[in-house]
Amino acid sequence: MSESKKVVLVIGAGDATGGAIAKRFAREGYIACVTRRSADKLKPLVDEIIAAGGQAHGFASDARKEEDVAELVETIERDIGPIEAFVFNIGANVPCSILDETARKYFKIWEMACFAGFLTAQAVARRMVTRQRGTILFTGATAGLRGAAGFAAFAGAKHGIRALAQSMARELGPRGIHVGHVVVDGAIDTAFIRDTFPDIYKRKDQDGILDPVHIADNYWHLHAQPRDAWTFELDLRPWQEKW
Amino acid sequence: MSESKKVVLVIGAGDATGGAIAKRFAREGYIACVTRRSADKLKPLVDEIIAAGGQAHGFASDARKEEDVAELVETIERDIGPIEAFVFNIGANVPCSILDETARKYFKIWEMACFAGFLTAQAVARRMVTRQRGTILFTGATAGLRGAAGFAAFAGAKHGIRALAQSMARELGPRGIHVGHVVVDGAIDTAFIRDTFPDIYKRKDQDGILDPVHIADNYWHLHAQPRDAWTFELDLRPWQEKW
Amino acid sequence: MSESKKVVLVIGAGDATGGAIAKRFAREGYIACVTRRSADKLKPLVDEIIAAGGQAHGFASDARKEEDVAELVETIERDIGPIEAFVFNIGANVPCSILDETARKYFKIWEMACFAGFLTAQAVARRMVTRQRGTILFTGATAGLRGAAGFAAFAGAKHGIRALAQSMARELGPRGIHVGHVVVDGAIDTAFIRDTFPDIYKRKDQDGILDPVHIADNYWHLHAQPRDAWTFELDLRPWQEKW
Amino acid sequence: MSESKKVVLVIGAGDATGGAIAKRFAREGYIACVTRRSADKLKPLVDEIIAAGGQAHGFASDARKEEDVAELVETIERDIGPIEAFVFNIGANVPCSILDETARKYFKIWEMACFAGFLTAQAVARRMVTRQRGTILFTGATAGLRGAAGFAAFAGAKHGIRALAQSMARELGPRGIHVGHVVVDGAIDTAFIRDTFPDIYKRKDQDGILDPVHIADNYWHLHAQPRDAWTFELDLRPWQEKW
Repeated sequence: MSESKKVVLVIGAGDATGGAIAKRFAREGYIACVTRRSADKLKPLVDEIIAAGGQAHGFASDARKEEDVAELVETIERDIGPIEAFVFNIGANVPCSILDETARKYFKIWEMACFAGFLTAQAVARRMVTRQRGTILFTGATAGLRGAAGFAAFAGAKHGIRALAQSMARELGPRGIHVGHVVVDGAIDTAFIRDTFPDIYKRKDQDGILDPVHIADNYWHLHAQPRDAWTFELDLRPWQEKW
Repeated sequence: MSESKKVVLVIGAGDATGGAIAKRFAREGYIACVTRRSADKLKPLVDEIIAAGGQAHGFASDARKEEDVAELVETIERDIGPIEAFVFNIGANVPCSILDETARKYFKIWEMACFAGFLTAQAVARRMVTRQRGTILFTGATAGLRGAAGFAAFAGAKHGIRALAQSMARELGPRGIHVGHVVVDGAIDTAFIRDTFPDIYKRKDQDGILDPVHIADNYWHLHAQPRDAWTFELDLRPWQEKW
Repeated sequence: MSESKKVVLVIGAGDATGGAIAKRFAREGYIACVTRRSADKLKPLVDEIIAAGGQAHGFASDARKEEDVAELVETIERDIGPIEAFVFNIGANVPCSILDETARKYFKIWEMACFAGFLTAQAVARRMVTRQRGTILFTGATAGLRGAAGFAAFAGAKHGIRALAQSMARELGPRGIHVGHVVVDGAIDTAFIRDTFPDIYKRKDQDGILDPVHIADNYWHLHAQPRDAWTFELDLRPWQEKW
Repeated sequence: MSESKKVVLVIGAGDATGGAIAKRFAREGYIACVTRRSADKLKPLVDEIIAAGGQAHGFASDARKEEDVAELVETIERDIGPIEAFVFNIGANVPCSILDETARKYFKIWEMACFAGFLTAQAVARRMVTRQRGTILFTGATAGLRGAAGFAAFAGAKHGIRALAQSMARELGPRGIHVGHVVVDGAIDTAFIRDTFPDIYKRKDQDGILDPVHIADNYWHLHAQPRDAWTFELDLRPWQEKW
């Protein structure tokens, strides 16, 4: 199989970060397979990668559904190429007082930001172990390390995904699979931040919010690490950020 | 309302630890309300507390069901007394390789050991904030701090419950509610350990496994702390334990 | 040797916390041996313990001097009784920008708050291992877990003492010695806080600062734990405290 | 000032890691200033960098002596160029039971692995703040996060250096200086490991020990990060390593 057959699978490529990661790996010759629940929103990303000379495929796939996940991974591995790098990048942060949080929302946030990570990473890991190589990366957050007031649901999900990442790293590292966890600590340059938090977005002028392209560079760096010196966890934050 | 009307609610009083906590608080004059999914197994515990001169009520209640939880808390507060102390004590540790873990089991462990904690602690917290006092304690584990190989599901749930505890502590502390998290690190003296891990159980002779009565003393200690000096987290482990 | 011969040694009993710990253990029948650099300031504490029916001895001793420490421990063990509990309680928090911190002060803070802990705890541990029992407790701080801006020296010393406590706990636990670390997170009710931070001190009315008596209760609780359920670390903070 | 005037200062360039970092930055056009206590041992490193077309200077300098440090930094900044990147890389791990550790050795390990880091990083930071840019990196270890049995001295020093790094990062980040901490978790490919731990060294065949060249790549990566996405901490370990 030629070098150009290597696949990076990015779950949750709808936002700026997932898209930037897909583009970064595509630039390095990887076939970018990107997913989100509705495929039409992926088209601009796929088109952009192809226009830049890369290869990309968009998949409408619900990462919370075991059958969807199984089919996604089977299709990619059979028709496109071996998944050499995998990125789970679904977030779902909707702060709320613990007194007002609904059971439905608490569950949904976990289902999207943690359970879907389990389903997808596991499905990919099962393929990677047969090849004794591959990289599995999770997008984390400060909420994965600390449960702040008003963040019970998000912190719960992000703590869960970090536990998953650690557990996988310890089991699969000695089987040749590099598992990593990136703690993003700060606002990212997205339409969401621009429209919802204009005051924070103003910091962009002075590099006070994270550029997805720079986040993506770190995912590539982790993937490129030789196996004698693997990083499990690194944090990323703007220089001005309080922490 | 007389002193004797104070209620301690222990969710998951089926095992040795939950039972010991109920007895400890009953000895201090609290009415012990204990739950598990089937009420008949609670009878010996309730009988024992009553025989010792205490007060106790057993409830069959599924802590994963929002309506069950609402009814449980409503019934206790209306018919028995204000819940002054609450203990969430449901665990569910069934180790498994990440490659073999089923989606169903990963979900079930989270539902029991984390989601049920959210539902029950929230329902109780809503009552406590109106009184501006109360104690909410969670039984944690080392898996809440570290995702070991083979423990993805349990670690995920325990990380989630710790995130919940932290988030509640930070929001509700300034509203007069003491939220705490007890990290149990070691085998507990239970029938399960005796029957399943006889080699570990042998350490009992030299105090090498945790006595539920001693665990319970620490829950009482946390509850009894005056509000100028509250503990959020303490760990408990046998003297010989490796960590 | 009679029960009343048990000694608690408190290094750094000049402040409110050390004094309260000495009094708490004295009330339980321990002979309180208390130290600080100049003995005269210890007299009121020793007198108060004796007036309350307890036993106490004050020692002028520089915990940073190996010979002083050796002599102190030798004198107590020979003339008074076996040291069953030991508390290292020297702090030294003088915040400063990292750009302005002097080498002398950085060193002094470490020498007082960390090196002295090594010297004294080691000297006592060497006695305790021969008896295969004893308790060694360190007063820690949030700075032992987190290096905040302006706290490099204090955080360095407190991180060091926590590392020492962990290392001792892991080595000496299996030899019967209970080593613990108490993370005090908040202002304590002392003359220093009253005079220097009157705004913080005002919180006393609403239990917003730590009462040394309540801190001391937790040291006693740790010492009283049976060896099947030892705590290494617990935190203490007022209910209103941000963290 | 031309690009080629940028200086990287590596304190403790005697070992493989410090040398590899110096060579990596030299390859990127930085003038490598490398120090250790005796200059003659630096000659091969300096010669190698120059032979490869780079620029390098060796300095005999005792990083534990404030005057030495002041002179070193003054000389470099005056005669060679502005220090744009700084690496503190002195370790000193000599395990010992806490019962046998000498006060002298406990002090010496701290003095070398922590106090020298304070002196040198501070001296460099004072220059960097005037330019509002620069990178300060510390070589850490797992002992900076965990005090294992038999590692009290080393863990104390490494905890201290991590506290320093955190404190500096929080104060100096908003002033334009990137402070980072690299947690090396595993044996490094050095003559020391080869001669002292031949069994561990054997793992080299399967990439089981860290290649200094790969460690150095991560230091460069940190330095190259744009300021909207800075990493404070990353860990590095071989794929087979237990953790």
